[in-house]
Amino acid sequence: MELLKPSTANSPPLTPLGFLDRAATVYGDCPAVIYNSTTYTWSQTHHRCLQLASSLVSFGIRRGHVVSVFAPNIPAMYELHFAVPFAGAILNNINTRLDARTVSVILRHSESKLVFVDCASRALVLEAISLLLPNSQRPVLILITDDTVEPSSSSITDDFPDTYEGLVEKGDPGFQWIRPNTEWDPMILNYTSGTTSSPKGVVHCHRGAFMITIDSLVDWAVPKQPIYLWTLPMFHANGWSYPWGIAAVGGTNVCVRKFDAGIVFGLIERHGVTHMCGAPVVLNMLTNSPNNKPLRNPVQILTAGAPPPAAILFRTESLGFVVSHGYGLTETGGLMVSCAWKPRWNRLPATERARLKARQGVRTIGMAEMDVLDPESGLSVKRDGSTMGEVVLRGGCVMLGYLKDPEGTSKCFKNGWFYTGDVGVMHPDGYLEIKDRSKDVIISGGENLSSVEVESILYTHPSINEAAVVARPDEYWGETPCAFVSLKSGIEEKPTEKEVIEYCRANMPHYMVPKTVVFKDELPKTSTGKIQKFVLRNIAKNMGTTQKNKSRL
Amino acid sequence: MELLKPSTANSPPLTPLGFLDRAATVYGDCPAVIYNSTTYTWSQTHHRCLQLASSLVSFGIRRGHVVSVFAPNIPAMYELHFAVPFAGAILNNINTRLDARTVSVILRHSESKLVFVDCASRALVLEAISLLLPNSQRPVLILITDDTVEPSSSSITDDFPDTYEGLVEKGDPGFQWIRPNTEWDPMILNYTSGTTSSPKGVVHCHRGAFMITIDSLVDWAVPKQPIYLWTLPMFHANGWSYPWGIAAVGGTNVCVRKFDAGIVFGLIERHGVTHMCGAPVVLNMLTNSPNNKPLRNPVQILTAGAPPPAAILFRTESLGFVVSHGYGLTETGGLMVSCAWKPRWNRLPATERARLKARQGVRTIGMAEMDVLDPESGLSVKRDGSTMGEVVLRGGCVMLGYLKDPEGTSKCFKNGWFYTGDVGVMHPDGYLEIKDRSKDVIISGGENLSSVEVESILYTHPSINEAAVVARPDEYWGETPCAFVSLKSGIEEKPTEKEVIEYCRANMPHYMVPKTVVFKDELPKTSTGKIQKFVLRNIAKNMGTTQKNKSRL
Repeated sequence: MELLKPSTANSPPLTPLGFLDRAATVYGDCPAVIYNSTTYTWSQTHHRCLQLASSLVSFGIRRGHVVSVFAPNIPAMYELHFAVPFAGAILNNINTRLDARTVSVILRHSESKLVFVDCASRALVLEAISLLLPNSQRPVLILITDDTVEPSSSSITDDFPDTYEGLVEKGDPGFQWIRPNTEWDPMILNYTSGTTSSPKGVVHCHRGAFMITIDSLVDWAVPKQPIYLWTLPMFHANGWSYPWGIAAVGGTNVCVRKFDAGIVFGLIERHGVTHMCGAPVVLNMLTNSPNNKPLRNPVQILTAGAPPPAAILFRTESLGFVVSHGYGLTETGGLMVSCAWKPRWNRLPATERARLKARQGVRTIGMAEMDVLDPESGLSVKRDGSTMGEVVLRGGCVMLGYLKDPEGTSKCFKNGWFYTGDVGVMHPDGYLEIKDRSKDVIISGGENLSSVEVESILYTHPSINEAAVVARPDEYWGETPCAFVSLKSGIEEKPTEKEVIEYCRANMPHYMVPKTVVFKDELPKTSTGKIQKFVLRNIAKNMGTTQKNKSRL
Repeated sequence: MELLKPSTANSPPLTPLGFLDRAATVYGDCPAVIYNSTTYTWSQTHHRCLQLASSLVSFGIRRGHVVSVFAPNIPAMYELHFAVPFAGAILNNINTRLDARTVSVILRHSESKLVFVDCASRALVLEAISLLLPNSQRPVLILITDDTVEPSSSSITDDFPDTYEGLVEKGDPGFQWIRPNTEWDPMILNYTSGTTSSPKGVVHCHRGAFMITIDSLVDWAVPKQPIYLWTLPMFHANGWSYPWGIAAVGGTNVCVRKFDAGIVFGLIERHGVTHMCGAPVVLNMLTNSPNNKPLRNPVQILTAGAPPPAAILFRTESLGFVVSHGYGLTETGGLMVSCAWKPRWNRLPATERARLKARQGVRTIGMAEMDVLDPESGLSVKRDGSTMGEVVLRGGCVMLGYLKDPEGTSKCFKNGWFYTGDVGVMHPDGYLEIKDRSKDVIISGGENLSSVEVESILYTHPSINEAAVVARPDEYWGETPCAFVSLKSGIEEKPTEKEVIEYCRANMPHYMVPKTVVFKDELPKTSTGKIQKFVLRNIAKNMGTTQKNKSRL
């Protein structure tokens, strides 16, 4: 037995890139990408990606170079998920909601050689470039034109020596794409949006991208040829791996430049959408939209990115969406924990179903192990649904590490685990529930208190649109919960702080009830739509300590 | 980038074994295995496998030991796919249709430490043991009792120191299963049935088993919780990986001891079967059975193992089966080429659809590459659907190699490819069609002639049940096709040799028409149901050379 070793024939590097070759063979004449009035077949998409990759090589892009993209969910963005690694390069999607300063930090840190820039973001990227240090190398900028945004934007300027379509046209459709030397070669560089700190460059290898892609297909039971609507930004952890996944199953990618509930409902009807993804905030926007309407056919919607309040899950399902809920981080390239649904739960009342579905769930089949560890002892916490600990993971889709940050990398890789920084509990049935980011836990009178739990109850209040709860320093308790809320539009009688607190008292243990409620027109968000708790935490801190308060109990 | 290397957290060994832990968590109270009146839930199956594994360890089984199984598709057979590797050992399924001599060869060659023996095969295995050389180590025999076969077989004898259920009962359900040290550790040892030569021991590692399992799930688009009927023997390339696959999706395994068309139709109805697999001979038996009846609900049936004649495909589909067709070898652990169906083919006439579906198809997404190479130049053959060459593969599910056979291993691993020994053509649309095993090609007048092609036309003859075509030496042409056929039962007027030849003349190019037709009550088969062409080839050879014959044209 010892003589039998892996060989070239049985250990070719795992990579999702070959999915596109196969899609062109099997689904060549089927629609691959639809955007407004443009449709590309899988055969066309395949050719376009090879052409673009060959042009990148002509531009001097080499194995291991970083190529950045600054664009929304348009066809170019989809194609670059294949074209950039086809050229041997590393794909770096940049969040289009970032400011120029952060973009310049990313360009400098990644040493990006070339940036594809959507025409709507030209000014911002130019500003970012102007902020680069004088001794930094300036990346080549390539303009992605879009007639629906700027009908006459095809002209080449000094800043943009070529356009995306120019590169496609010049390229060779017979280009032999550059295979990775090993499956551990880097393929993806994603900067975390950073709810708390400066962006970190998360590096994924070809094997990791392959693993998360097929794992996500099996876990969501994606059938052949789904119609997939791109409501989740591809710059957000590569759209949870579905750019590669949809090629694997020969589906149709319906692209959309901007999220708008009315447009989404229109596209669902027009193209017969079967699948889509989005953070809970997307579910919230869909259900709160005046344009919402019950779906003709069920649409599978996969949500993750934050624990979804049960009330939102419930409202989404009543429109006809079939909600699946999972959990992942930029560091895992997609969802590797999901709330696998048990058939018998269908017999439970709707609110109970929503409560169960709001849990993050169990590891997917590609993820080797998951646990919740006590921060002190490092041992598994009790499976009691209430003892909190840090969520740790081990599996093939966990990142290689953070770019140029050995300290950050070694901090989260300990004892053979990846430490997520998320705080959760393990229920008796083996399902994980995230309670908070470790830094978001409120410690009041020595008790750990999950801000997310308080928020999920605030979301059930009929007038509240969004809610975030953070710690406010307290003389007696150490910290107390402080709630920031925004109200739904069109509310006639706005609730008072006292009324909200009373609502909480009626619906949660007293020690969890916010001592302070602050009304805001809108809560501050990160570029990926997550509420910026560190901003709110600073506000709460500056409000001063709350007074000694013995009324608790 | 160079600093980022795989670590324990992101490179745990790939293995399908963890699927069972997960199934117990998610589908714990759902049926996992059904056999006659016995049903085990996933939770029970999980416990039983852990108990058995712990008993194996108590028996002295260690990492890397070989444990053999000699059983049909009964619950024990299913459980051993997890229990044996849970103990760190290598699972060796032995084909129950083999004779005692071959079984003894396998036991000696594999150095098997322990053999689980189905009660119905007790005598045969004891005979095999008696044939072992005096200096061979004798494996421990464990009896698998079955009340439906031998109501009083539970007694322990000298030959069988324990029973399967005894081991389960004694075992520890809290046993921590033994994880592989690396994903390249051997997990499976399957002996090829050998249509031509003595059995070879095909070794697969944990990674290979993981790859073929998830790949097979995605390729067949298996949904969650299918009802899977075990018509394909698990000893046949581990049932094409579905023992692990059905655990991954939490399905139900309906076990059946013996293939019988009437029983199969009954089980489909009784359990609401959704999925099953089988060689074309199984399809043939289903459609030719007097008990066949149109299905109430469509059943997915996956076929492979031999190129299925279009006529059989057609008849199977008219009963309501949805036939998928793939291609694999024991050396690939399952199917890694499949005839991915194009939606527009549904609009074609039924015979044309069947012709297309009889092709083997394209690589699955987990298989990195597939090609057909010219034996002389080693280059890809023309994609013209007629130039024959050898099928080669490269991918993560290709075996590690043959046990104790470095020569055989290096013979099939050349230039980074695995050489299948199968002869095929590549169609212009990129779909592979197998024409023959290389040794089955008939060379007549310098022309390569596919025996399978002649057979597929013979199968369309209304009176012919089975057909096999081999080369018969010919003075003038070198070789000519010689057909061996068996007729359907109940045929009133049996066709003559002349009539069959005339039928062929009307339906195929003249140079392909058999010069000889031999009628047989039954064609000789291997233990996996494949026709033994080498037996027929010997018969044809002994018939003497056919006479000079210029009538060809």
